[in-house]
This record gives sequence, C-alpha cells and structure tokens, in this order.
Amino acid sequence: MPAVRLGIGDDSAILSPNGRSDWALSCDAFLEGVHFLAKIHPPDSVGYKSLVRAASDLIAMGASPRYFLMTLALPASRIGTWLDTFLGGMARSARFLGMRLIGGDTTKNHSVSISITVLGEVSRGCALTRSGARPGDLIYVTGKLGRAQLGLELVRRNLPQRTGLQDLLRQHLYPRIPVKLGEWLARNQIATAMMDISDGLSTDLARLCSASRVGARIEARRLPCVAPPASLFPATIKRTPNPLLLALHGGDDYGLLFTVPPQRSKRLQRAPDFSTVTCIGQVTSGRKILLSGDGATKLLEARGWDPFNRK
Amino acid sequence: MPAVRLGIGDDSAILSPNGRSDWALSCDAFLEGVHFLAKIHPPDSVGYKSLVRAASDLIAMGASPRYFLMTLALPASRIGTWLDTFLGGMARSARFLGMRLIGGDTTKNHSVSISITVLGEVSRGCALTRSGARPGDLIYVTGKLGRAQLGLELVRRNLPQRTGLQDLLRQHLYPRIPVKLGEWLARNQIATAMMDISDGLSTDLARLCSASRVGARIEARRLPCVAPPASLFPATIKRTPNPLLLALHGGDDYGLLFTVPPQRSKRLQRAPDFSTVTCIGQVTSGRKILLSGDGATKLLEARGWDPFNRK
Repeated sequence: MPAVRLGIGDDSAILSPNGRSDWALSCDAFLEGVHFLAKIHPPDSVGYKSLVRAASDLIAMGASPRYFLMTLALPASRIGTWLDTFLGGMARSARFLGMRLIGGDTTKNHSVSISITVLGEVSRGCALTRSGARPGDLIYVTGKLGRAQLGLELVRRNLPQRTGLQDLLRQHLYPRIPVKLGEWLARNQIATAMMDISDGLSTDLARLCSASRVGARIEARRLPCVAPPASLFPATIKRTPNPLLLALHGGDDYGLLFTVPPQRSKRLQRAPDFSTVTCIGQVTSGRKILLSGDGATKLLEARGWDPFNRK
Repeated sequence: MPAVRLGIGDDSAILSPNGRSDWALSCDAFLEGVHFLAKIHPPDSVGYKSLVRAASDLIAMGASPRYFLMTLALPASRIGTWLDTFLGGMARSARFLGMRLIGGDTTKNHSVSISITVLGEVSRGCALTRSGARPGDLIYVTGKLGRAQLGLELVRRNLPQRTGLQDLLRQHLYPRIPVKLGEWLARNQIATAMMDISDGLSTDLARLCSASRVGARIEARRLPCVAPPASLFPATIKRTPNPLLLALHGGDDYGLLFTVPPQRSKRLQRAPDFSTVTCIGQVTSGRKILLSGDGATKLLEARGWDPFNRK
C-alpha cells in the first residue's frame, strides 16, 4: 500500500504508490442550510459548485483532478426535477474538471446533505503544500477577490436578475477554478507553497503562514478588488459592500494563494492564465500578518468564514 | 493515473495503479434521524459503527482496509463530550480494522451528518465482485442473520440494560465484521462472487443474483437464525420478532454473502473463522430467488432496507 506522504492538515492528503505519480485525496461537505439555501440557489448550481469546491482542494496542491465519490442524502420530494437538475450541474463541472464519478451512496434525509471525496494525480514529490513559504517569497493570488461574497450579498438582498448581475453572480453560483495554473505551478516547481482561498484571504493567508512558520506583509492597494456597481446599491452608502473588506474576508472564491521566490517570478509570466495573477505582498520572517495602506501598517485579523463562529 | 477496473454498481470501485495491488474505494453516509437516533444510540457506538459500516464495503470485495476520510457536520452543542466520545468509538474501530484517517472536513449542521470514504488494498485482479456467481455454486453467509435487527428492536422497545441483553445489542451497536475471512477468500480465489449483507439477505441476495444473471434456492432450515430470548418478549406472542423474518429481511448485520463452486468447498474449511460460515443454498440458472421450507417452495421477496421505501 502506498505510504502517506502528507496526512491531515493541508488541503489534500498525499499518498505515494509505486510509480511516477502521487495521489491527492480530499473530502468536502456541502449542506443545505449551511452552504446553500434551497430557496435561492438553483439545483444546477448546487450540483456544479459542490464538486468544484471539493476539487479546489486538489488544485490547491497542484494535482490534476481525476475521480470522485459522493454520498448524497435528500428528501424523497427532491427526487425528480430537483435531482435531475442537480446531477446535470454536477455533470457539467465534472466535464470542465475532467473528473469521473466512481462511487456513491444515496439515502434519504430531511434536507440535502452532500459529501464529496476527490482524487487527483500529481508528479511524484511535486505536490505543493502550505508549509513551504520562505521569507522574501512574493505572495500571489488569482482572480478578483470577493466576487463570490459579493454574489452572495446580491442573492441575499434578493436583487432582481438584471443584465450585468449574471456576471457578478457567476463566481458565487458556478465558480471557475484555475486548474491549469495550479498544475503548471506544481509541475514546473515554481511555487514554494500553495492553497486555495475558500474561507477568505485573511483566514487562509494566516493558515499558510502558520504552516510555513512565517509572516506576511500585504499591500491594500495591490489587492484585486471587485467594485460593486453603484447602481445596484443606490439607497444608502452604509449598505454598500466595501470592496477592500470583501477582498480581505470574503469566502467562497476558490482562487489560488501561492508564494514564489523573487528569482522565479519572471518564469511565472509564462504560466497559463498569468493575466489573472496578482502579486499582493511578500513573506516575512516575523510571524505577524500585516496590511499596509493609506500610509499606515496594521495587523490583519483573520475574519473569514469559520463554520462554528459565523459573523 | 490508474485505470478504473470497476466503477459504480458494486460494493466498492476498483482502481488499478501500476504495481501488485488494486485499490478499492467506497463511501457511506451515516445520518442522525436516518441511520441512528441521538437519544438512544451512544456517541461511542455512532463513531464505531459509522466506520465499520463503510469498511464493510471493502471487506465485501476481499480488500484490506487501509485509509479513510471523513466529513463530519454537527451542531455546536455536540462539540465537547459528545464529539470526544464519538471520536473515541471511531478510534477503537479504526484500530480493530487497521485503518488510518488521512483527511477530513468538519462543519456545523443542525444535526449530525457523517460521510466516510474508505480505501483498501487487494491483490491485483483478485477483488471479488457481485457478478461472478455461476449456477451450481454454493451460497454461504457468515454469522447469525438478524442479530443487528433484533438489537434494534430491543433498543426501540426501550428494554432495560439487563444481563444477556448486551450480547444481543453488540451486533447492532458495535458490529464485528469478518475482515480476515474476506481477505482470505479473495487472496485464495475461493469465492466466485461476494458482497456484504447490509440491507438484509432477501434484498442483498437479489442484488448479487441480478449482477451475476443467475437465481438462487435458499433452504429456510439452514438459515443461521437468532432466537430472541422468550423472557424478553413475555407479553404477547404477536410482538415477538420472528427469527426467520429477522434472518431473511433484517439489515445492518454486515456479514458476508458469497458463492463457492462445490469443488472448492472443501478448501473453504481452512478459512479463518470458518466456524461462523453457513451454507444456505445454491445458485440456479433460473433467474428466480426461491425459499424452500416446510415442504413448500416459494418466491423470496426482497423486503430488506430501502432508504426511500421504509417499511
């Protein structure tokens, strides 16, 4: 049996069978009432997103997604249209990710409860963990930060489905994840540490720094924020989501957070989807996470998603 | 990446990486209100049984259990004593099974929802599926049939914890599964088909026969029934569980159901725990499942556990 190269604590476990590849394994729960609301999230999105979220933990190691198993518990009333549409959404993300369902368990329940285990492949010894960041490394993220959180805010406020809104909702309902970039970073041994941003930058960066026993300094002006269109929040300035807070603490984006030594940063420009990559700061030897902006530097609190302490 | 030797439809999926071993993978949900009741099932048993149930799908292929991943969703109120006791029970079954936890996802929920994915190892090409039974093969089961169901009846009737009851409750609360026997049957290529009896003999035998495109004739007098002690059900004869019905339709036993060609049945006597094995009938070429007893033969209806059509 393959040795366990990496156990609990990172995005995925890594097993090393004989051969040129390691296996990454991870599991993820997606629950009605916790991760989605049946009344406002279309079943198509529930199916699509539940698999993407799970696969994101493989991408976070630089692994290529391959197989998945799913336990699905649902009320009898959801068999039929709801289930068919759910499975249609899941089939769509499976195609996008190149994954195949190899096992499952279906049972009844009073609400929908989905658990997905994903398996991916990565060249032997090349999986990118959270613990390899070194002082001086540059810190990168992919995509706009806070898009999914903004999408959630729009859904919560029950805003009408007008033109322009679909694009903002997409990352919340049908998140795209940087599969090719993650694979490339691992294969070419460019990054020193990597993880996905699932619970918000402030929380996930703190985890990466803790695993690597380092600190970080982030520059607020460099953060790739998403600007909510003013027309959507016309009533009061108070209720308008703050782009910086969305970027720092908004969860559910499933972009990548990774570190690269300065001398390798030029090679990074050859990466697939490099145009979506932004350098946001640098790893430090002090163990603090600092945010610089407006001429001041302050401690960055981890205020992302915590399932047992919801804001 | 390993080829998929066997996909959805059997107890486990089988992947074939390079090397001498295949991998068996399976997943299983264990939900409060569906598979257990928080009020009457001790957390220790919930932890123990959730892993054993999942691992049973590996044993059913003749695979050796190795690793598992778990998603655990629970109310904040269960963190503390309940969770600690749950994990203690799970650690105990992990030791018994020789398994190691390599990944997990914990989140909040309004009730406890457990999903476990298990990985096992089996010699290349030796995994025992449901589809290999041939007419003339002898049909075997392990252990007493209906013990777990009887235990559940006792728990449901809220019978006091008296001496003698513990033994009857054990298979319901802390099921033992025939790990060594399953491994031996696969390694020595004795059985032609195998599965575990999780939903009741009548339902699971129908599945094995359907996958193998055969039928079966079972002899009622040969069934290893469990006799409920008369002292426990003194009030009326009506309410006493019927041992034959418990054996035919009672679920949750996690014994093995397997088929062996008559010419190999002598070698079977060298199997570990052979004393727990009973021959209950024979595979037929007709596609019907028949039950012989009391001088008559009748069709055996599949009346075991069906999550969407509970008796």
